[in-house]
Amino acid sequence: MSRRHLLSRLGWGSAALAASGLARAADPPAHPHTSIPKADEPASAPLPPSRPDGSYTPVRTLNGWTLPYKLVNGVKEFHLVAEEVEHEFAPGSVAKCWGYNGSTPGPTIEAVEGDRVRIYVTNRLGEPTTVHWHGILLPSGMDGVGGLSQRHIQPGETYVYEFSLRQHGSHMYHPHADEMTQIAMGMMGLFIVHPRQREAIDRDYAFLMHNWALHPGTSRPDPSVMQNFDLWTFNSKTFPAIEPLVARSGERVRVRVGNLSMWNHPIHMHGVRFEVTGGDGGRWPRAQWRREVTEIVGVGQVRDLEFVAVPGDWALHCHMSHHTMGPMGHEIPNAIGVDQSGVEDEIRKLLPGYMAMGKDGMSEHGGHVAMGMLPGPDNTLPMMTGEGPLGPLEMGGMFTLIKVRDDLAPGDYRDPGWYRSPAREQARRISSDPDFGSPVRRTVALTAPAEVLQADPHAAHRRHGG
Amino acid sequence: MSRRHLLSRLGWGSAALAASGLARAADPPAHPHTSIPKADEPASAPLPPSRPDGSYTPVRTLNGWTLPYKLVNGVKEFHLVAEEVEHEFAPGSVAKCWGYNGSTPGPTIEAVEGDRVRIYVTNRLGEPTTVHWHGILLPSGMDGVGGLSQRHIQPGETYVYEFSLRQHGSHMYHPHADEMTQIAMGMMGLFIVHPRQREAIDRDYAFLMHNWALHPGTSRPDPSVMQNFDLWTFNSKTFPAIEPLVARSGERVRVRVGNLSMWNHPIHMHGVRFEVTGGDGGRWPRAQWRREVTEIVGVGQVRDLEFVAVPGDWALHCHMSHHTMGPMGHEIPNAIGVDQSGVEDEIRKLLPGYMAMGKDGMSEHGGHVAMGMLPGPDNTLPMMTGEGPLGPLEMGGMFTLIKVRDDLAPGDYRDPGWYRSPAREQARRISSDPDFGSPVRRTVALTAPAEVLQADPHAAHRRHGG
Amino acid sequence: MSRRHLLSRLGWGSAALAASGLARAADPPAHPHTSIPKADEPASAPLPPSRPDGSYTPVRTLNGWTLPYKLVNGVKEFHLVAEEVEHEFAPGSVAKCWGYNGSTPGPTIEAVEGDRVRIYVTNRLGEPTTVHWHGILLPSGMDGVGGLSQRHIQPGETYVYEFSLRQHGSHMYHPHADEMTQIAMGMMGLFIVHPRQREAIDRDYAFLMHNWALHPGTSRPDPSVMQNFDLWTFNSKTFPAIEPLVARSGERVRVRVGNLSMWNHPIHMHGVRFEVTGGDGGRWPRAQWRREVTEIVGVGQVRDLEFVAVPGDWALHCHMSHHTMGPMGHEIPNAIGVDQSGVEDEIRKLLPGYMAMGKDGMSEHGGHVAMGMLPGPDNTLPMMTGEGPLGPLEMGGMFTLIKVRDDLAPGDYRDPGWYRSPAREQARRISSDPDFGSPVRRTVALTAPAEVLQADPHAAHRRHGG
Repeated sequence: MSRRHLLSRLGWGSAALAASGLARAADPPAHPHTSIPKADEPASAPLPPSRPDGSYTPVRTLNGWTLPYKLVNGVKEFHLVAEEVEHEFAPGSVAKCWGYNGSTPGPTIEAVEGDRVRIYVTNRLGEPTTVHWHGILLPSGMDGVGGLSQRHIQPGETYVYEFSLRQHGSHMYHPHADEMTQIAMGMMGLFIVHPRQREAIDRDYAFLMHNWALHPGTSRPDPSVMQNFDLWTFNSKTFPAIEPLVARSGERVRVRVGNLSMWNHPIHMHGVRFEVTGGDGGRWPRAQWRREVTEIVGVGQVRDLEFVAVPGDWALHCHMSHHTMGPMGHEIPNAIGVDQSGVEDEIRKLLPGYMAMGKDGMSEHGGHVAMGMLPGPDNTLPMMTGEGPLGPLEMGGMFTLIKVRDDLAPGDYRDPGWYRSPAREQARRISSDPDFGSPVRRTVALTAPAEVLQADPHAAHRRHGG
Repeated sequence: MSRRHLLSRLGWGSAALAASGLARAADPPAHPHTSIPKADEPASAPLPPSRPDGSYTPVRTLNGWTLPYKLVNGVKEFHLVAEEVEHEFAPGSVAKCWGYNGSTPGPTIEAVEGDRVRIYVTNRLGEPTTVHWHGILLPSGMDGVGGLSQRHIQPGETYVYEFSLRQHGSHMYHPHADEMTQIAMGMMGLFIVHPRQREAIDRDYAFLMHNWALHPGTSRPDPSVMQNFDLWTFNSKTFPAIEPLVARSGERVRVRVGNLSMWNHPIHMHGVRFEVTGGDGGRWPRAQWRREVTEIVGVGQVRDLEFVAVPGDWALHCHMSHHTMGPMGHEIPNAIGVDQSGVEDEIRKLLPGYMAMGKDGMSEHGGHVAMGMLPGPDNTLPMMTGEGPLGPLEMGGMFTLIKVRDDLAPGDYRDPGWYRSPAREQARRISSDPDFGSPVRRTVALTAPAEVLQADPHAAHRRHGG
Repeated sequence: MSRRHLLSRLGWGSAALAASGLARAADPPAHPHTSIPKADEPASAPLPPSRPDGSYTPVRTLNGWTLPYKLVNGVKEFHLVAEEVEHEFAPGSVAKCWGYNGSTPGPTIEAVEGDRVRIYVTNRLGEPTTVHWHGILLPSGMDGVGGLSQRHIQPGETYVYEFSLRQHGSHMYHPHADEMTQIAMGMMGLFIVHPRQREAIDRDYAFLMHNWALHPGTSRPDPSVMQNFDLWTFNSKTFPAIEPLVARSGERVRVRVGNLSMWNHPIHMHGVRFEVTGGDGGRWPRAQWRREVTEIVGVGQVRDLEFVAVPGDWALHCHMSHHTMGPMGHEIPNAIGVDQSGVEDEIRKLLPGYMAMGKDGMSEHGGHVAMGMLPGPDNTLPMMTGEGPLGPLEMGGMFTLIKVRDDLAPGDYRDPGWYRSPAREQARRISSDPDFGSPVRRTVALTAPAEVLQADPHAAHRRHGG
């Protein structure tokens, strides 16, 4: 008997719980500090970096921000506040999540190798927490493992961490206390340590991958789910709410991709062969840089992917096709090959806006994606979405674009709009006759001896006297 | 409430749908061109490669074929037709899938670095499609992302793509339109670009990994399944229908392994330590070649594995043990340690041919696998299958053999039959006495202090004066 | 219709089977040799290694042991016995598993490159088996694939394998017969081949990762489960029953991590950046050693991770957060944000000891983890456990500690207790005022143009005249 069976025999499921009257509706958070974040005061403005040689290309955190610091006697002081946040994954899907300083992921911490940092962590959650500085070399007592390297930070308390940065690389921070729950709720952030010597990088992007069990119609992630997630995100956003990566042609671009989800995600880039140059183990020697078009970024890993930008609009996405889809794409009934005429109307009486998988696939007649054009369950994103310059993009989840143009100013991160391909460089229709080219070349019979099925260019070569 | 719950409360499952009368049985495909493929006309025969230096070892696509081309004013012209295909995974399991030119995977495109290629794509499916040339460097407008780099190819239309190959390596093609559905239905193919300089490779094999939710008793893959698949395939075939990789002892063999499934598959080879030499990022510098016996091939990746062939019959398979099993192996009731005498007969009255997991394991008494010797659900492969020279192989799914012999002619790909080991090189029975060697060496107590449990060869060495 | 549906329509689930009367309770194992292992006789004591140069740092198998051998005419003779074992995953969870010589994993085989080994394998299971020597270069007939390279070893029979070791590296052994079942039941072991030249390694640890479908309240693993496992183990143990890795500051430590589970596990180490130096492909050239803090170890892979020990208590774990949790953590109802006052008592009447996920997370009020402090289902570990020096560790599954001290004697593997951080090197509370530091720095609005959200150190630099 499975866990679910065990519990459902007791009538003890989320829905049953909600409906049974045994559970009272949750009160608003009891702690006054888990309320909506307020804007900064001017006094919080960032101060200059600690050393004159501290110049670096600042990291561009997709849809995020860098945490300002205060320089106090040569130490960079940061302040993280763990708290509940109201988070929008994309317009139409909002949930109560947990994060830092009003956002999930929390703000990116940026510093320079050699810096001494002091980080205050205030806990405004209802349970204890800690912060583990993932990949950073530091004393055992600063490592943030609750119960082992420190006492837990109780609700309302503030702890201080302090250490010197003896390395550079792409790192992360996250709780090491009730970790399964707290990470599942969105508590994570990037911790970027720049080298003392300025690197030859023109644009430096960063994001964290995550998965969320935000079941259709609900508004809180379910931390007990192990694999079957609903939302797949870059920096807690789903396409098309993920901002694009913008670059000028010829610029050297780095993308730092971290993973705090439950899947090892294969990240694919169109348009270029990138080099994998390191990650949370630091920047590798150049002889180890590896050319790829897809790189698996493991859970608890950060990978640095570098390339020289080429003009165009290029996709950057997880290559697991369900991870570029919205929550209504998984585990729905299979209707391929089934004529559903008349069925949808019946279903819509029960579930307003429901749209079945089509007989011919998910794209409905005429090449337009109907998904998302009618309302689905409350607070639930459609399976596929996104409107491109030439039609529907039919994507969702872990998908965004790299937009490269010839004429951008350095440091201009604004979305340049859609790329226009020269006509001779674009796939085009040359026939609307379904018989075009018939009879086409086909394998005669897949069960024939295999050697028959192979084209032999040498044989052909000989035959034609080449 | 989960998606499945939401839908099942509406009585809206595949079975319910089929049985409810709301859904009419699907008509045969309305479009006349989605019918059974016809054989080629002679006029479609391959033409010589474009340049005299275009000699290369042609790729051997397991169970597949290479798409012929026509040379037109120095451009290699190919023609892909997206369409429904009737596909046999292995004898006993046939399904309506989608592919190209009559097969899934579609035919392999082979070309040479420097070639200019022109590829016609005709859509004979019922919904729009596109083709993305995965890993190929090309203009943004040729990249095949529907709605972004081009308009969708509507049913009945033909589009043309044209670009020059500025690289070599192991690449793929697949739709970038309703991608989750179309790939799940089998639309994929290999795109191999050979270098201009002939490589020191004697045999060059290639296949694509995939997973299929072809639920027992059904005949169409279910594209909404995210993880819990039924069939695990190399080039859309399951063992023992996958053709072996044949080589002569001492030949240098390359195996190009691509992945368009939903899992990152660890591919294991027996008999050799292979080198990972590159993939869709091109061939890496020799200093980066990495010696392995198992390599994770990520989704959206191709890996090139090279080795020098050693005589014998060697397994090549995914090392996730469920992925070398048929559909009846997963998620069935656990009967280990349960005496099922009399039960199977009862069950067989309800489900003809059903065979439970045995009390002592899956292999039934006497070392013979009964699985698959009785009929199971319609159109459903058994859990384990395959008869070897010395007994049942008890495998399925992503499993095939590398067959290496001393006396093969170059280019002979015919199955050489079973390898016969010299008697002194084969594991053999030396006793049928269950007390052989008793009492055997065992750990005294696993709960004892750990240092007690370790053999210490130095201590032993000293004790025996060695 | 899914497999589970198909079977449950027949009333054919494990529970139904047990309750129906169709199945008789399983008799005790019929074969007298599948009984509780007996201790060794003195005569089985290990003999000296075969060659004077055979000195090496013996591998420390976590919670395990090395199989002694007998030297017979220059050949090292080993004896493995496949059999059922009663195994304790951690105090409170015992199951009938399968293993070798009384344990799962079986004992580690250690030998030296150039050795000739002879391995007797006795089958005391109720079904046929074989042993495959994973990653070892050997004749085809010694490769252990049942039905292909040899006949199956029938119950009661003993087979002999013999080969010379022509390599060194970190290898494994496991059945290649009814593999899915036999590995799922625990049949696996390490096979370490040391090089002839002593390596500069001071401590050499090894373990195998695995997953078990030991459903709450049951006592036999379920081999048909493909993904949704209950227990995640290092050498078949869960935290805190996994022994720590002990080292002296400055020692060079190797950890050989093998994987025979169904997941590719990302292994993370705190405190150091390790080097990945090879694995079952042998030790790579030094130029290929790769610096990481997390390494994905694929199924069917072994990875060698090396580092210089740094003082402290450091976590070593899989970074998938559900894999460092016990069985009651996955797939339970989500109660975050739901006030459950009064509910638990109701539930506990039905399920003694049940404890729901808390409204504020899994850690209950006051920073103490209640999980596991009340009894749950029989024979079932809690979700989180482990008491550290400074509070609850809130972990489980694939988690252990690396304990490094300045003053250990070489070869002393005893647990040195907890590390005490110097006060100035430990995170500490500096405030209990929840308003500490308010108002904190927060992002103004995540929907604002992205460039507003970025801290710009250059701008700040300029502003402050730096």
